[in-house]
Amino acid sequence: MKHFTTDTLIYHYDKSIPNVGTVKQGEEFLVDTVDAYGNQITSEKVLRTEIDRSFLSGCTGPIGVEGAMPGDTLCVEILDITFDEYGVMPMSPGMGTLGHLDRVPGHSTKMVRVKDDYCYFDENIVFPVRPMIGNIGVASENEGGLRTSWPGDHGSNMDCTHITIGSKVYFPVAKEGAGLAMGDMHAAMGDGELCQTGVETPGHVRARAYVYKESIKRPMVETDENIFTLASAEKLDDAIPVAVEDMVDFLMKKKNLDYPDAYRLLSATCDIQICQLVNPRKTVRCRAPKAILGIHSVFD
Amino acid sequence: MKHFTTDTLIYHYDKSIPNVGTVKQGEEFLVDTVDAYGNQITSEKVLRTEIDRSFLSGCTGPIGVEGAMPGDTLCVEILDITFDEYGVMPMSPGMGTLGHLDRVPGHSTKMVRVKDDYCYFDENIVFPVRPMIGNIGVASENEGGLRTSWPGDHGSNMDCTHITIGSKVYFPVAKEGAGLAMGDMHAAMGDGELCQTGVETPGHVRARAYVYKESIKRPMVETDENIFTLASAEKLDDAIPVAVEDMVDFLMKKKNLDYPDAYRLLSATCDIQICQLVNPRKTVRCRAPKAILGIHSVFD
Repeated sequence: MKHFTTDTLIYHYDKSIPNVGTVKQGEEFLVDTVDAYGNQITSEKVLRTEIDRSFLSGCTGPIGVEGAMPGDTLCVEILDITFDEYGVMPMSPGMGTLGHLDRVPGHSTKMVRVKDDYCYFDENIVFPVRPMIGNIGVASENEGGLRTSWPGDHGSNMDCTHITIGSKVYFPVAKEGAGLAMGDMHAAMGDGELCQTGVETPGHVRARAYVYKESIKRPMVETDENIFTLASAEKLDDAIPVAVEDMVDFLMKKKNLDYPDAYRLLSATCDIQICQLVNPRKTVRCRAPKAILGIHSVFD
Repeated sequence: MKHFTTDTLIYHYDKSIPNVGTVKQGEEFLVDTVDAYGNQITSEKVLRTEIDRSFLSGCTGPIGVEGAMPGDTLCVEILDITFDEYGVMPMSPGMGTLGHLDRVPGHSTKMVRVKDDYCYFDENIVFPVRPMIGNIGVASENEGGLRTSWPGDHGSNMDCTHITIGSKVYFPVAKEGAGLAMGDMHAAMGDGELCQTGVETPGHVRARAYVYKESIKRPMVETDENIFTLASAEKLDDAIPVAVEDMVDFLMKKKNLDYPDAYRLLSATCDIQICQLVNPRKTVRCRAPKAILGIHSVFD
C-alpha cells in the first residue's frame, strides 16, 4: 500500500507545490500525520507559548489522484483512522470562544492518554474516542495558495466532526491530480472546537479516492445517514447562508423541486450546524438526512 | 385533568398578567395551542401578507405552578404532544436565512397534512413528524414583559428541536407561580428554522411541572441523552459565549473541575448547536452528552 509519511508536510494548500506521489482511483493508501502543533508538545512541561509557530497546522501531502482535472469533484473515502497513544490540549489566556472572559489564569498543557478507543482525561473522566480529521483539502485555486490554518472552498482546516471513519469527503478540483493533503487529527472534539483544541494527536489514515466528472462549488461530506454542505467565512453570519443555499440547490436538483418548496423542505428537515468557531475563518455545515429525504448519495 | 384552552392567549411574557389557573407540582395538565399565525392561515389561498399580525406568536397561559417563587427553578416535563391534522408553511420574499438572495418569486402558502406521525409535504415527499414546542417560557423579570416573539432568559420563542416529548425544560422563576405559557408547535423543523417556518400547527401538550429551590440564569433542557444550556441574543456571536460559559460553569460544578479543565472537557465532548436564526433574537444551545460525561440530570 502506498504510504505518505510526515516527511512531506505542507503549510499552504498551493497548486504550485508538486505532488509527492500519485494514487490510482480506488487504490487504498496510508497517510501519517503530525498533530496540529507539529508534535512539538511532548509533555505537560511544554507550553503553547514555547513552540515554533511556523510548524502549526502541517498537513501530509500533496497527494495526486490520477484522472482528477480542474472542474471535477474529488471524493475521498476515509476507511480507517488510528492514533498514537497521546493527545495534547494546551491552554492559554485568550483562547477559544470564551477567550474574551479572561478566566484562564495562565498557560498550561494537559496530556490526554488515548488508548483502546478511550480518552483518559483524568483519573475520574474517561470518554470514548470520536476520531476525526480536522484538516483535509486539495490545492486551492488561489494564486500562492492558502495557509493550512485557513478553511475555504478547497477544504483545509474545517474541523468537521463528521469527517471520520466511513465518511466520504468531496472537494472541487483546481489542478490536475487535485493535490490532496490532510492533518490535525482529533481523538475527540465537540462541534465548535470551543476552547480552540480537541484532543490533538498524530494519526494514521487509510483512505481511497475517486473522481467524478461533475462540479461542486465547495466541500461536501457524506456519511451513512447524512449529506452535508460546508462553508467557511470570517463571520459566521456570512458562512451560514452559503452552506444553506448550497443545500437548497442540492435539494432542488435531487427532489425536482422549485426554489420555494426546496427552501421549505430544507427548513422542515435539515439542520444548520457548527463545525468550528476558532480558526481564521469559521466553518458551518448544513445537514440533510438521507433516509428522511430519500436521497442516496451526493452523485447518483 | 386541568385543561388550558386557546381562550386565554398571551402576546407578552409579562409578570403583571394574572395566571389563568394554577397547577400543583407533579399534577398532569393539558394545554391547547394555536399555531404561530393564530390559526389564521386556513388554506393555500390565504397568504402571510393577508393575516392580522397582532395575532402572531400567541401562547396559552399564563399557568401558575404552586410553590414557585422568584429565584427558584421551574422544571416542565413534556409528557405528550399531539397535532391537528394540518400544518402551514407560508413563504414570502425576504424570509429566513436566505431572504437577502431575492430568489423567492412571490407570496405563497403550502399546507402540509400531518397524520399518523407523518408529514405529507407533497405526493412524493413524506417524512416523519418530529414534534416540538417552539415557544415555551415563564413571566419575564422585565417590567412590561417581552413580546412572545422574543426569546430570552425567560424562554419564549427559542425554537429548540429538543423541547419535545420526554424533555424537561428548566426556567428561572421571576414571579410567584412562574406564569408558564406555551405555543408555536411544529410537526417538524430543522435546527435553524432556516426559511423562517417549520411545519406550523396547532397542538395539544400534556405536561407536569416541578419546582427546585435552586437558581439558574437561563433556560436549560434535559433529554434522556443530553443536557443543554440555551442563550438568545440579537447577534449569534453574542449568544454563543453565553451558552458556552453556562455549560463550563455547569461542568465545573458537576465534575469538580477547575475552569481550564472544564473548558477543555467541554471542547472535547460538548457541541455548540443552533436552535433558530430567524426570530428577533437568535437562540443557540450548548449540548453536553450525559452518558459520556457521567452526568445524570440538571439537579441531582
